[in-house]
Amino acid sequence: MAVSLRLPSLSSLFSPSISRRYPSVLRRRHHLRTPSFTARFSAQSTVPATEKVQEGGVTPRSQDFNAWYLDVIANAELADYGPVRGTMVIRPYGYAIWEAIQDYLNVKFKETGHSNMYFPQLIPYSFIEKEASHVEGFSPELALVTIGGGKELEEKLVVRPTSETIVNHMFTQWIHSYRDLPLMVNQWANVTRWEMRTKPFVRTLEFLWQEGHTAHATPEEAEKEAIQMIDVYTKFAYEEAAIPVIAGRKSKVETFAGAVRTYTIEAMMGDRKALQAGTSHNLGQNFSRAFGTLFTDESGQRQHVWQTSWAVSTRFVGGIIMTHGDDTGLMLPPKIAPIQVVIVPIWKKEDDKAAVLNAASSVKDALHTAGIKVKLDDTDQRTPGWKFNFWEMKGVPLRIEIGPRDVSSQSVVVCRRDVPGKQGKVFGISMEPLILEAYIKDKLDEIQSSLLGQAKSFRDSNIVDVSSYDELKVAISQGKWARGPWSASDKDELKVKEETGATIRCFPFDQPHGIKTCLMTGNPAEEVAIFAKSY
Amino acid sequence: MAVSLRLPSLSSLFSPSISRRYPSVLRRRHHLRTPSFTARFSAQSTVPATEKVQEGGVTPRSQDFNAWYLDVIANAELADYGPVRGTMVIRPYGYAIWEAIQDYLNVKFKETGHSNMYFPQLIPYSFIEKEASHVEGFSPELALVTIGGGKELEEKLVVRPTSETIVNHMFTQWIHSYRDLPLMVNQWANVTRWEMRTKPFVRTLEFLWQEGHTAHATPEEAEKEAIQMIDVYTKFAYEEAAIPVIAGRKSKVETFAGAVRTYTIEAMMGDRKALQAGTSHNLGQNFSRAFGTLFTDESGQRQHVWQTSWAVSTRFVGGIIMTHGDDTGLMLPPKIAPIQVVIVPIWKKEDDKAAVLNAASSVKDALHTAGIKVKLDDTDQRTPGWKFNFWEMKGVPLRIEIGPRDVSSQSVVVCRRDVPGKQGKVFGISMEPLILEAYIKDKLDEIQSSLLGQAKSFRDSNIVDVSSYDELKVAISQGKWARGPWSASDKDELKVKEETGATIRCFPFDQPHGIKTCLMTGNPAEEVAIFAKSY
Repeated sequence: MAVSLRLPSLSSLFSPSISRRYPSVLRRRHHLRTPSFTARFSAQSTVPATEKVQEGGVTPRSQDFNAWYLDVIANAELADYGPVRGTMVIRPYGYAIWEAIQDYLNVKFKETGHSNMYFPQLIPYSFIEKEASHVEGFSPELALVTIGGGKELEEKLVVRPTSETIVNHMFTQWIHSYRDLPLMVNQWANVTRWEMRTKPFVRTLEFLWQEGHTAHATPEEAEKEAIQMIDVYTKFAYEEAAIPVIAGRKSKVETFAGAVRTYTIEAMMGDRKALQAGTSHNLGQNFSRAFGTLFTDESGQRQHVWQTSWAVSTRFVGGIIMTHGDDTGLMLPPKIAPIQVVIVPIWKKEDDKAAVLNAASSVKDALHTAGIKVKLDDTDQRTPGWKFNFWEMKGVPLRIEIGPRDVSSQSVVVCRRDVPGKQGKVFGISMEPLILEAYIKDKLDEIQSSLLGQAKSFRDSNIVDVSSYDELKVAISQGKWARGPWSASDKDELKVKEETGATIRCFPFDQPHGIKTCLMTGNPAEEVAIFAKSY
Repeated sequence: MAVSLRLPSLSSLFSPSISRRYPSVLRRRHHLRTPSFTARFSAQSTVPATEKVQEGGVTPRSQDFNAWYLDVIANAELADYGPVRGTMVIRPYGYAIWEAIQDYLNVKFKETGHSNMYFPQLIPYSFIEKEASHVEGFSPELALVTIGGGKELEEKLVVRPTSETIVNHMFTQWIHSYRDLPLMVNQWANVTRWEMRTKPFVRTLEFLWQEGHTAHATPEEAEKEAIQMIDVYTKFAYEEAAIPVIAGRKSKVETFAGAVRTYTIEAMMGDRKALQAGTSHNLGQNFSRAFGTLFTDESGQRQHVWQTSWAVSTRFVGGIIMTHGDDTGLMLPPKIAPIQVVIVPIWKKEDDKAAVLNAASSVKDALHTAGIKVKLDDTDQRTPGWKFNFWEMKGVPLRIEIGPRDVSSQSVVVCRRDVPGKQGKVFGISMEPLILEAYIKDKLDEIQSSLLGQAKSFRDSNIVDVSSYDELKVAISQGKWARGPWSASDKDELKVKEETGATIRCFPFDQPHGIKTCLMTGNPAEEVAIFAKSY
């Protein structure tokens, strides 16, 4: 594997302390001019391939996880900063990952009986105030439109931070009897939250998500729906994103503003911090009471509907980066990779070029026909070594190399992104379409499960079972997750947060058997909770 | 065809003058309570099927086109009013039509080399001011965020009305040399324009659209791209939406704020008003000059890039309603219909029910397997007659009826939505899957081309060739489109608008041969223009 060409990192352009803070990076970047880090790394850049580019690649993950994360986002061309503080431009490669997430979930949502629709993003301010805990949770984060068409508005409008309020306003007009239930809808939309500390994908002023909203005739049905949707997310995380999330219930303190119960999937990132990667809320009758969302039940009684809402956002892309990436860059699970296989043709003599490109092109066509997402990088403005680095940075699971000798032997070289060096490189795989196709599909499956397996081992080796607060403190101070029996008060939970920085991520669905005593109070506890520092 | 059950119309609940105005309707609707017009028309409504519902259906199209349009939108459950004046909730059935539009165009955009991505919707106010004609065009329509996170912002933020400004801001960071060009991206997004006169789908405060943005190294390439994309839209309109749009170039007066040339597709609605259904702009260097979007060309010179932008929005759904709908409701071209075939099982005796439902279910499975979008309406809360009306209102192209006698003869009855009464009804079509599938596919194709054919005849019989201003005035006063040679001034064009209410919709690509003299001035004219009143 060629390593001669390495690329300047975002963090290397700034002092670590600056690159760690998003707003500072933003301000500084505007002083940067041609060629910027992005341009230098673009396949179509002005910098000729022969020019010596700064060595080093991204900041090592172990050295500064946050700088590494920002470097990968910049160098793999996933996102860029928008002109307004805390906003993000999702670039085509990053957006393609989001499209893969959408494609999978959209099918699952429809299979489970939901229809897509669209609610307006401008919400009267008075709506937000109707549900007491909801306004408390969201009012500090609101973006308000106060001027429209050149005039001061009579009522300020909220740019939606989430849609429960407007959804209920509309549900009151559509729901009348039990026959109108369940009402199950979803929307793919942008939402705006005035966050103070932002980080690309993980927490941005505006982000993309889907938000499901349902109304039911009984509390049991609503609960079943909330569980069903967290299960859909869990399955997606394991099977598609290769992220071994832990699914469970949020503590009261961490429950969504306006929900009765919040279910969550919690993922362990490469720095062992937890990322809340998706949530599903049983809203009970909180919003239906606030908005008067009533139905006539089978016995003719008027009742408030029982509701759920659930969401996954572009934050998930951040979770994928921080779960699988390494010092070489991004590493994508095959099932959500926009490009699963990149073909790099290699020739030195001009005489060999036609034959090599010809073979590469046939291989590409064969794989494409087999339904594999394949790209042939046949530009001659870059060296093969440069291309290897570039596509590794972009996390493409497999690389196929084809040189003149491969053409003579009618074979190719296949390299795995997840197995570095010679170990991941296999020579002499036949070019014969059916053989190659079967081999590639097999390897992609292997990579998919290998990534999940590795993430699982990493996760499991970093969760410590604790039975006392002291043990919990040790685990957290080592950067690990602590799992222990918990039945203490909200106040105790907040004390843990204050003293250790860790919060209850969830009471996992998967619970150990047997009698438990609370790690904080020594009282009987019914469940273990997982504590961790989080994003 | 049963006509016993008809439904209350939105307009019948209000005086015509009120239903004609969106804001008034909005205010009045809030006084309406259960059962609202929407509820009464819902398949899952509280109103039992036996209850006598008001006769009449929608307002006849010929009587009041606008009231008819609003009635269809309400009764076919396409959209509803949002709580903020001029906003719209797109309901699942309306959204499914938008999804069909997205599915087709998204593939075409990718095939023509574009990548999806996402730009933030909040734009610094100063950006809008950079391109002189752009700010003039858009500043009266802006929604401004002035408060974020509880604080007054230093700089007001614009909620995007379109993205050329922020796109150029980002392009300056990504484009450096001719090797970075062409840069071709698209985004599916919401946009906000503070419109004073709104109408569901056609003109709303917030709407959904796609906006393509490209940058090129030469003016020829940009021009070619702008033409390519209006061609994509034209093909979509004809082949999928069965709308025979007229494609052409906008006059200078009607050109997009900031563009050098705007291409458009203009559709004739059922009331013969024109609807601008999609536009593609050659932006020249207007934005690249304003934002300094430069590249180094092959000879090493710095140049401003040449750009395009192009968009189709949820307005297109309005175009479909107003092109094909009739007094029975919506009529959908099979290629974009969320449901292509609805099966209505019919039984009287409880003994027959199982056999009928069983047969209906087999037919459904067979058609579904064949890739046909089919729905079985097997609820027993509604009579068959009610169901006929309901699905006709929703514009489903084909209905299959299955009763006990059909089960015995192993056949079905097939009814076309576009051919009313007995003429559209064929008995004795075999249930045998392969025969039925072939028959249904054939009929769907027939309906698709029949709808286009009808819309074409309607269009052509309502375009009048004129050679003088007097003839133009007559044509317009008859509600028709006028086509005539034009080389007069912008001032003359504005005079026509003032005196007749008609504007130049486009100079069509398809031009008659021969020498022409301007209908207004008698001077030589190179092209004919089409004048019409428009939405």
